[in-house]
Amino acid sequence: MSEQALFVMGEDGHLDPGVILGYLPGRPIPVSPLRLGAHARIRSNSVLYTNSVIGDYFETGHNVVVREENQIGHHVSIWNNSCIDYGCSIGNGVRIHNNIYLAQFTVLEDEVFLAPGVMMANDPHPICTKCMKGPTLKRGCRVGVNVTILSHVTIGEGALIGAGSVVTRDIPPFTLAYGNPAKPRKPVDALTCPFNLVTPYVAGRDVRTREREGSA
Amino acid sequence: MSEQALFVMGEDGHLDPGVILGYLPGRPIPVSPLRLGAHARIRSNSVLYTNSVIGDYFETGHNVVVREENQIGHHVSIWNNSCIDYGCSIGNGVRIHNNIYLAQFTVLEDEVFLAPGVMMANDPHPICTKCMKGPTLKRGCRVGVNVTILSHVTIGEGALIGAGSVVTRDIPPFTLAYGNPAKPRKPVDALTCPFNLVTPYVAGRDVRTREREGSA
Amino acid sequence: MSEQALFVMGEDGHLDPGVILGYLPGRPIPVSPLRLGAHARIRSNSVLYTNSVIGDYFETGHNVVVREENQIGHHVSIWNNSCIDYGCSIGNGVRIHNNIYLAQFTVLEDEVFLAPGVMMANDPHPICTKCMKGPTLKRGCRVGVNVTILSHVTIGEGALIGAGSVVTRDIPPFTLAYGNPAKPRKPVDALTCPFNLVTPYVAGRDVRTREREGSA
Repeated sequence: MSEQALFVMGEDGHLDPGVILGYLPGRPIPVSPLRLGAHARIRSNSVLYTNSVIGDYFETGHNVVVREENQIGHHVSIWNNSCIDYGCSIGNGVRIHNNIYLAQFTVLEDEVFLAPGVMMANDPHPICTKCMKGPTLKRGCRVGVNVTILSHVTIGEGALIGAGSVVTRDIPPFTLAYGNPAKPRKPVDALTCPFNLVTPYVAGRDVRTREREGSA
Repeated sequence: MSEQALFVMGEDGHLDPGVILGYLPGRPIPVSPLRLGAHARIRSNSVLYTNSVIGDYFETGHNVVVREENQIGHHVSIWNNSCIDYGCSIGNGVRIHNNIYLAQFTVLEDEVFLAPGVMMANDPHPICTKCMKGPTLKRGCRVGVNVTILSHVTIGEGALIGAGSVVTRDIPPFTLAYGNPAKPRKPVDALTCPFNLVTPYVAGRDVRTREREGSA
Repeated sequence: MSEQALFVMGEDGHLDPGVILGYLPGRPIPVSPLRLGAHARIRSNSVLYTNSVIGDYFETGHNVVVREENQIGHHVSIWNNSCIDYGCSIGNGVRIHNNIYLAQFTVLEDEVFLAPGVMMANDPHPICTKCMKGPTLKRGCRVGVNVTILSHVTIGEGALIGAGSVVTRDIPPFTLAYGNPAKPRKPVDALTCPFNLVTPYVAGRDVRTREREGSA
């Protein structure tokens, strides 16, 4: 029965109405319980499947789906109407905004930020699935609104992808890239604030990160 | 408790199963009740937060999220799986279609139309948030399917943005713009109907608007 | 009352919590029951309207909306957070992935595959609706992640549309097309596997199709 709860949850979890923990996969795999860490905050109608392991301080918006066989770190947020397909690896401090789709076997390292509407591919010539693999996003890279990322692509550490881009090739670390197809444009450190309020990036680290580290 | 209802609703409201009114924000702000006008029609599993003020004849599709501190006029529709982030200003007669994300502090003037999948940015160099602000869409402009709009951009009155565009700069009033990046192409009045059924725009006013005003 | 159940369901159907069958349309049409075939699998919080006819082995993800007056064949899957607007015609074996919007009067022939985030338009000069019509996707064509398709466009049999494209004109059969606007690039049979694992297309038929037909 799909309604069967099959999960272990840490202390101080908060579940909204309509949340389902331990949803059973349709794929024929041996079932193991969902393991959800402490201090979780799961908003209404979100569904977390079995066979995933999620760290502490996990937070979702409304109507989020996390499929099976995902490894998710601590302090991860996934906002409204987003879906994590199966087999992904997500580091600590990752923020996944609204209406996002993470393809199977996507890798997001620590501190990655995805803006709303980011979509990932996982098959270079559908339908095949012999080499199915989502992209790899290295530590602290930032992906703008409504960006499309093709299968097997690697986005480098601290890179920044402009809104509406289509990323078809690897992007070097600490580089701004944008367009369809997305091309490297300049180092992120060369970006200036249009309102002269801040220095946006220093050694590839954004304003929020520097504030958090006490070095802004 | 997030399940605490904290709202005031006008007469003749209709709420589907699973609707939550007065959802409490995670941000640390003083709570005031959601104020929802008369004749509301809220479809299943939609969630309206506290601290927003919404006019009469508000209609949602299914799974819609309206965050806190939004000002929304009369006769506004928001369709399935769309999300309005906090702090937006939305005029009268605005239509927001499926799978849309409205960034914080977006402004939509009266009669704006957003086609499905429109996504907005609010930070020119994430993550910073010092100058966080969504775009401004002037009265009666129309935005096509899956369009991306960058932060701080203004789209002029009665403009039309072609499907799949990425809007990186201000668009003049009553102008058709499209592409990545979106460029002004011609006055909307110069557009013709591919089936010769109508004159699409007269003085920037579309067929539906002219019919409603009795001047078609 | 919108909560009124008004549907006929075949044998061996499985409905998750929060599913609504026979949801009443807001449009003023004569109501006929939703007809849902045998072996349906409807996941949590999905909503199927009246006045649609759906074949056997229909499967949805979570939070799917299927509006009224749709004709849907057998063995069709629609994944999480997708919406089928009214009046569409969908053949057998069609797969519709996450976060997709199908415009009114879209036609999907047998075996069409839509990757996540595909969005369709239906009005060449909004708001008019005099010639409102979604695109037509011919048998077995495949559409990549986050692709935008304009109204009235036809995508040919067995064609492949690259991720992030904007399809503004008809695409010939068995052709790879991509870009904004999408342009025909080469026959799908000319595509090679980047890992030399397979021949991606033979006479326009992909690996999965050939395996299913026993001719891989």
